[in-house]
Amino acid sequence: MESATVTASRRYPLEREIRVGLCGCGVIGEGVVTTLLRHADIIGERVGAPVRLVAVADKDPARLDIVRAQDPNIALLDDAFEITKRDDVDIVVELIGGIEVADRLVRAALDAKKHVVTANKALLAERGAALFALAKANGCDLYFEAAVAGAIPVIRVIRESLAGDRIRSVRGIINGTSNYILSRMANEGAAFANALKAAQEAGFAEADPTLDVTGGDAGHKLALIAALAFGARVLPSEIPTEGIEEVDPRDIQYARKFGYAIRPLAVAEHLEDDVLDLRVHPALVPLTDSLAHVDGALNAVAIQGEMVGPSFLSGLGAGASPTATSVAGDIIDIARNSLAGGPVRTWHLPSERDQKIQPIADLSSRYYLRFSVRDQSGVLAALSGKLGDSGISIDQLVQDHEGGDAGTASIALLTHHAREGDVRDSLRAIESTHFTTAPTQLIRIVE
Amino acid sequence: MESATVTASRRYPLEREIRVGLCGCGVIGEGVVTTLLRHADIIGERVGAPVRLVAVADKDPARLDIVRAQDPNIALLDDAFEITKRDDVDIVVELIGGIEVADRLVRAALDAKKHVVTANKALLAERGAALFALAKANGCDLYFEAAVAGAIPVIRVIRESLAGDRIRSVRGIINGTSNYILSRMANEGAAFANALKAAQEAGFAEADPTLDVTGGDAGHKLALIAALAFGARVLPSEIPTEGIEEVDPRDIQYARKFGYAIRPLAVAEHLEDDVLDLRVHPALVPLTDSLAHVDGALNAVAIQGEMVGPSFLSGLGAGASPTATSVAGDIIDIARNSLAGGPVRTWHLPSERDQKIQPIADLSSRYYLRFSVRDQSGVLAALSGKLGDSGISIDQLVQDHEGGDAGTASIALLTHHAREGDVRDSLRAIESTHFTTAPTQLIRIVE
Repeated sequence: MESATVTASRRYPLEREIRVGLCGCGVIGEGVVTTLLRHADIIGERVGAPVRLVAVADKDPARLDIVRAQDPNIALLDDAFEITKRDDVDIVVELIGGIEVADRLVRAALDAKKHVVTANKALLAERGAALFALAKANGCDLYFEAAVAGAIPVIRVIRESLAGDRIRSVRGIINGTSNYILSRMANEGAAFANALKAAQEAGFAEADPTLDVTGGDAGHKLALIAALAFGARVLPSEIPTEGIEEVDPRDIQYARKFGYAIRPLAVAEHLEDDVLDLRVHPALVPLTDSLAHVDGALNAVAIQGEMVGPSFLSGLGAGASPTATSVAGDIIDIARNSLAGGPVRTWHLPSERDQKIQPIADLSSRYYLRFSVRDQSGVLAALSGKLGDSGISIDQLVQDHEGGDAGTASIALLTHHAREGDVRDSLRAIESTHFTTAPTQLIRIVE
Repeated sequence: MESATVTASRRYPLEREIRVGLCGCGVIGEGVVTTLLRHADIIGERVGAPVRLVAVADKDPARLDIVRAQDPNIALLDDAFEITKRDDVDIVVELIGGIEVADRLVRAALDAKKHVVTANKALLAERGAALFALAKANGCDLYFEAAVAGAIPVIRVIRESLAGDRIRSVRGIINGTSNYILSRMANEGAAFANALKAAQEAGFAEADPTLDVTGGDAGHKLALIAALAFGARVLPSEIPTEGIEEVDPRDIQYARKFGYAIRPLAVAEHLEDDVLDLRVHPALVPLTDSLAHVDGALNAVAIQGEMVGPSFLSGLGAGASPTATSVAGDIIDIARNSLAGGPVRTWHLPSERDQKIQPIADLSSRYYLRFSVRDQSGVLAALSGKLGDSGISIDQLVQDHEGGDAGTASIALLTHHAREGDVRDSLRAIESTHFTTAPTQLIRIVE
């Protein structure tokens, strides 16, 4: 190590080096190892001092073997907590995932006055407030760009670039697995189950895809975005969330006829002082909107600011290399802070306000509705009459037999703006009649 | 001032305040004043201390009157150099534009140990190296997000988010005026002169639009991007640059038939160790590319990194409020650095290498060519024969009379990849025959 430092002082303007310890060497961890080793030259140049990976911990010896093969000088450990105890580590990178152990690990690192970089959205969404307070108390940085939208620098853009602006709304495709599945359904007319299987085979969905396809993962990320953009202290469980499992290929086809694509959206909008519109669900997005053209495993975030106007970012939302780039960007940022020699550059989040999340029943939106009805005269008139009784007016409508069983027809329509509670009430009234043959599909329009 | 600080210490976690002096109060300057005053609360929250505009300088008393009307406590000066001499200014914002006076002003500020924020791309493209060295020597920050692509955080993303990656290419629509004009030509079939006039009337082009429509403005920005992304020390005059003046509505129509849009592009690509492909020109972009859908006055930047893959950013490229947001983001970043109490967080640019710009004659590209030819038999065969003699093969071709004079025809075609020097030679040979009735149009394809 002595000799490494000497070498370093010959090549770089600064005398010190920054030493990184990595906890968890799965897919993303391996990407971080590769990035730090392969790009050591440019990272050193940009920081002004070498950034050196000194230790890696993982329970799986096979993963450690892969690290050893790349650089035999890296200390290999089976206990991540050992990383937090090492004097030769300045920055701890937490990539073990989960909540309980990761929480203890991050606390141990911060208590040992080490800066932390994490990609753990679940941990921060559930325990973020306490962890940021602990980081501040210990004079440490806690960075998490990789926790939201992989390679897209949404955290840095909200926290730094738009720090002088008042953010009105953030809309994003922030779950690549869901977007891959819906894209595949759109491009191939595949059913959800088949598209999911294809996504798993292509490595875009995990063996257990529940957290992705139910919107849970996007909810974690949205809670973080709401904290940064609006100072909202929101738990993921409080966010109205729907997954993409109920989307049918027919919905995608009807949406296209109406000029829309169906995308897995997360929406955060500041309605008034104390009310936020937060939600995760599949949505019809106009084909004229950039979000409609974000295909496959790409992620995207559209931010609307009072002064900045519309701002749009897209890139790979998952995968080892893109996510590792975000981790590396955080490490470099902390390294620069650290080498500046002063105390940590604390991020003051917007003051946390008790903001209410608008109940989904109070949402004012346009809706896509698809009814399965008996194929007999008078049904359409009766159905539109029932909607009209609830004050819901129809903007566009298509009726056909495609995909329906004999004796049934499909009616797909777009409503004008309506209160969601009223729409739901009306659907219940319609379904209590003898017109419908199956539950009605409802998908919100976001435009 | 005493009382302001006391108030501040009640409201904010930090005891100090950060004081800003603004030089130049034109359109963007006024936007900065508005942002700092209107968003003082959220900026203070995010920085952890108040950020206060203490002085504004402008030669035009009418502009100062507008500032006075918003806040009578701001010192108003007619000499920008007075701002650099004030003890109560921590950050000098340079928005006077031009090169010579701005150069002296920024030097005066840095010599007085004041941090500087500038939106002056011409200044940085021409004198950046010396100014960054001076900032470093004086322990000061020199920030310039607003100099490139208005509200799009391209500088911060390259410098911070992608600092751990090796950037392969940056392609951008970084001149909003040119993009507005080409969009207008595309949407209305307008000729260049009419679209320019409409852009001027709509406030998207200046009375003298030369720097915008000739590509000069984009060249300044591209020189900055090349410095950040590749460590290239490049003067704007060294970048092969073509404006959009020669684009004809017919070219836009033909391009659309072939599946392309015409956009004003700036391209920076790292070819090999010491060779860069840098150029500014209108280009055919496939309609499947996000850049093709960036309409009107929007700017966009597509970055390709070795690890990060494709990254895409778009937003408003000009205008008071969007650009002011970028200036405010820089002020906030410096304020945070400054309040951290340590020395400045120096940015180490990639080490400057003597990199060569590939001569445009050596470019390997596909090309759109539009020939005006005599409407007689044998011309097409002769023309494609001539191209073939130079090793240029045709991918797609359309021949028609539309828009041509009687007795002449148009032949529009896309070539396969060819060396530009060979294409130019071949065009010269073709134009020396009696086939053509007007100079041939050549537009590069970027995909």
